[in-house]
Amino acid sequence: MKRAYLEKTPLAQAQARWFAALEQAGYFDARLETIPTVEAFERITASPIQALRPVPHVRAAAMDGIAVRADQTTGARLDRPFVLCKDVDFIQVDTGDPIPQGFDAVIMLEDLDFPTSNTAECRKAAFPGQNVRPVGEDFSKGQMILPARARLSPEAIAACLGSGNLALEVIRRPKVFVLPTGTELASPLHPLPPDKYPETNTALFEGYLKRWQALPTLHPLLEDNHPQIKRAIESALQEHDLLLVNAGTSKGREDFTTAIIEELGQLIVHGVSMHPGHPLVLGLIQGKPIVGVPGYPVATWVVLDQFVLPFLERWYGSALQTRRIVTARLARRVHSPLGEVEFVRVRLEQSEEEWLAHPLAGKASTLSSLIHADGLLVVPEELGGYAQGDVIEVRLLR
Amino acid sequence: MKRAYLEKTPLAQAQARWFAALEQAGYFDARLETIPTVEAFERITASPIQALRPVPHVRAAAMDGIAVRADQTTGARLDRPFVLCKDVDFIQVDTGDPIPQGFDAVIMLEDLDFPTSNTAECRKAAFPGQNVRPVGEDFSKGQMILPARARLSPEAIAACLGSGNLALEVIRRPKVFVLPTGTELASPLHPLPPDKYPETNTALFEGYLKRWQALPTLHPLLEDNHPQIKRAIESALQEHDLLLVNAGTSKGREDFTTAIIEELGQLIVHGVSMHPGHPLVLGLIQGKPIVGVPGYPVATWVVLDQFVLPFLERWYGSALQTRRIVTARLARRVHSPLGEVEFVRVRLEQSEEEWLAHPLAGKASTLSSLIHADGLLVVPEELGGYAQGDVIEVRLLR
Repeated sequence: MKRAYLEKTPLAQAQARWFAALEQAGYFDARLETIPTVEAFERITASPIQALRPVPHVRAAAMDGIAVRADQTTGARLDRPFVLCKDVDFIQVDTGDPIPQGFDAVIMLEDLDFPTSNTAECRKAAFPGQNVRPVGEDFSKGQMILPARARLSPEAIAACLGSGNLALEVIRRPKVFVLPTGTELASPLHPLPPDKYPETNTALFEGYLKRWQALPTLHPLLEDNHPQIKRAIESALQEHDLLLVNAGTSKGREDFTTAIIEELGQLIVHGVSMHPGHPLVLGLIQGKPIVGVPGYPVATWVVLDQFVLPFLERWYGSALQTRRIVTARLARRVHSPLGEVEFVRVRLEQSEEEWLAHPLAGKASTLSSLIHADGLLVVPEELGGYAQGDVIEVRLLR
Repeated sequence: MKRAYLEKTPLAQAQARWFAALEQAGYFDARLETIPTVEAFERITASPIQALRPVPHVRAAAMDGIAVRADQTTGARLDRPFVLCKDVDFIQVDTGDPIPQGFDAVIMLEDLDFPTSNTAECRKAAFPGQNVRPVGEDFSKGQMILPARARLSPEAIAACLGSGNLALEVIRRPKVFVLPTGTELASPLHPLPPDKYPETNTALFEGYLKRWQALPTLHPLLEDNHPQIKRAIESALQEHDLLLVNAGTSKGREDFTTAIIEELGQLIVHGVSMHPGHPLVLGLIQGKPIVGVPGYPVATWVVLDQFVLPFLERWYGSALQTRRIVTARLARRVHSPLGEVEFVRVRLEQSEEEWLAHPLAGKASTLSSLIHADGLLVVPEELGGYAQGDVIEVRLLR
């Protein structure tokens, strides 16, 4: 019976080794594309964006009222109003209208009387620039709207359009190949053969990859067939930026992922001392990163969280997910083997002045332990666990 | 010159009046649709989802190893191993494989020796169920996977597919009609006439509506032309769940939104005592809610935040945006007229042990004050502002 090699590389070392190999290959040099600004919502800028014209580009009325020449109103008082003539001394303007040439102030409606349809009574001197939005009030020409590696919010898109940026340089979305494998599995979309389990990790990959701004290609499920899996990987290399093979990553009879990576390229890590997720494979084929992702759903999730998300964040040079930490008291003890990082899903309960963290019972095989988790407790390698009542840090998952 | 009516309804009262009118009209009764589960990422459930079959539906091996009958191993010891015959006493299984009929335990590879290709040496008694995932380990049949009004995470989608839920009842996405108006405006996508300003609020509407799970219909910009605007609103009523007209909401010569709502339906509020955003119009036309949104971009943003987001959250019966509050010290005084809610954009700075909140200078007309804001300080009606050094609550905007 085959006994494949399966190390226990420490998690931090596995991450460091993989990302160093990728950085050395120039893998995280920004890959740009230029797209229309109106399609750039939530995309990430590749370079700083500057105003191509001032905003506003001509002076605008900040109030409904009349545009006047301020010096023509000097001396007007409540008890000595000046009468101004329409279209000569004043021009009616509404908020947002351009200020006509030669005029320099706006008197608001509330401060005026209109004795006839052609005259306005001004009871207070206006000052130059009064109720006028000056050129460049929002952005002067050349002013930076957004730095590089920033997410394009709705207001940033609006400011880009307003300042004449109709196209933007953004980081290209990485294309990620997802290959589910397993003779014991079947598509969940068709009636289930009695001896097959529904393949559901594809949904995990698709959901998280889309959430993290990647473009997944979902390959149909393959049986544990060495030549078929190898062919699928070879034909995906050219088109993709990251390849994920799920699973075939352990040392069972039908675990071919490690062997295929060794045949086609370079194996960087096989086996990481973490749980769930130990039988993880990291490699490079023709300069393309490939991950053999273990099959238990929580193991798949841990690899997405610990390897795929950091990969994408390096790709974008920008955080893709907020990480909120809360301090909590552990409701019951947690055991974790020394030398192994343990990812414990916990439910949080507000208890008087503090949070109480209940470790969830489910194993790596249970999606329910992910669905019900409010947060994640990470037990580091050097600890054998935590005692009941210990104060711990929990990363929120929602 | 026309002087339209423009109240100063308190913000909370305006919200209450509008939502009461809509609730009375049964507007927030869940509107369902049934869609394929694989298209339901991030959608919100309309009803609880239960497992239609147990997960797993047949027992599965939890380890790579051999399936045995536990009672056949009773008495096996390191110093007295039992020899088992392949395909008679044991069947090889890999993690995730179904347990063959008649077998009830799995011995992992690490605990075995294989003296010949057809025999295995068992050195420790197995117990029934050892290394076996029982039927229903993840979900029993009928168990609730998600309650109603919950967001469908990737792991929830995976669990739905695994438990036989191929279609899901979700809350239908509301269709929102966005009508930009203003003779002083022009599309930002074409060369700008010298006396026109680029219309950029459509980008604000589009971005936030998409972020909040609504389906925007973006009408082309219209001039301030009463019959044209009226016709556009009338023809959109049938197809949409919410109508947003931007702007024409004040009392200038070309502000037609209020009049059109009164002509076609019921005016609920005109004028809310908040800044930015005072000239807001709320109405109902043929049972459909319509909002006249003031035109300054920060005013538009405030109305999105204070009226459109709560509308959509009531529609879904679920929070659409996290609201994180931090306590901060105010770096400089903030003035706000009594009787008016003031929305102050602030930049946050970490200063020793506390956050320092710097109010941003920009007016309601400046997108830059939104782009640079880390948070929002809300000055309530009953306060005239805050003094420098006051400890305040800031809602984070990113």
